[in-house]
Amino acid sequence: MERLGRHLIIELFDCDRKIISDLNTVEDLILEAVRISGATIVESFFHLFPPNGVSGIVVVAESHFSIHTWPEYSYAAVDIFTCGDSVDSRKALSFLKQSLKAKNVSMMELERGPTGPARISDTDPDVMA
Amino acid sequence: MERLGRHLIIELFDCDRKIISDLNTVEDLILEAVRISGATIVESFFHLFPPNGVSGIVVVAESHFSIHTWPEYSYAAVDIFTCGDSVDSRKALSFLKQSLKAKNVSMMELERGPTGPARISDTDPDVMA
Repeated sequence: MERLGRHLIIELFDCDRKIISDLNTVEDLILEAVRISGATIVESFFHLFPPNGVSGIVVVAESHFSIHTWPEYSYAAVDIFTCGDSVDSRKALSFLKQSLKAKNVSMMELERGPTGPARISDTDPDVMA
Repeated sequence: MERLGRHLIIELFDCDRKIISDLNTVEDLILEAVRISGATIVESFFHLFPPNGVSGIVVVAESHFSIHTWPEYSYAAVDIFTCGDSVDSRKALSFLKQSLKAKNVSMMELERGPTGPARISDTDPDVMA
């Protein structure tokens, strides 16, 4: 049995509320994060939920990126699910941490595949820095 | 701090290869699972990756459902991320287990929100049955 997918479960805390409230800004930043990671965009969809939460999904050739924001909590939930070894999810995460101005980050990394979910790590000092 | 989201990380093993290879079938079943859960569909997108892997995303008012299938391993990765208490994710999972004819299931339930990811449970006897 082999690992097929790598899934980063990311919580971005104390984000800039204005940034994560704006549909176009969130869309631009997630798409840029996808590009930075090296993933191949297949389709994307972003939606503003009144008053100001944003949900966005990018289907990539390597699986998907998603974001859901709760500006009232300065919080964004991001998932980066990729297969193969060509995508650098950590680069995407670093970019999002900076661009959403998150002061704190929590990250859990899971392996996905025929063996079932396995937790690889909960934190990443490079990312938390 | 409160729980905003509930995220089911689901591995479906030993699925019917023909079912999880077919784009239209996977789309129909996931959309039916969303309806069964009580979630509200905002947008959906499904894509066939040659030769026969399917990726699908449904953005719902309560967050998202996703599926990625690897028919060569009889395996499907499903995520059900919901907020609020109106969606019954377990019903959706039970339906998918049956309709994809998964002989085995692994499930991890995470809380998502300003407090960070917390693992609630790894297994559910009702689901595994």
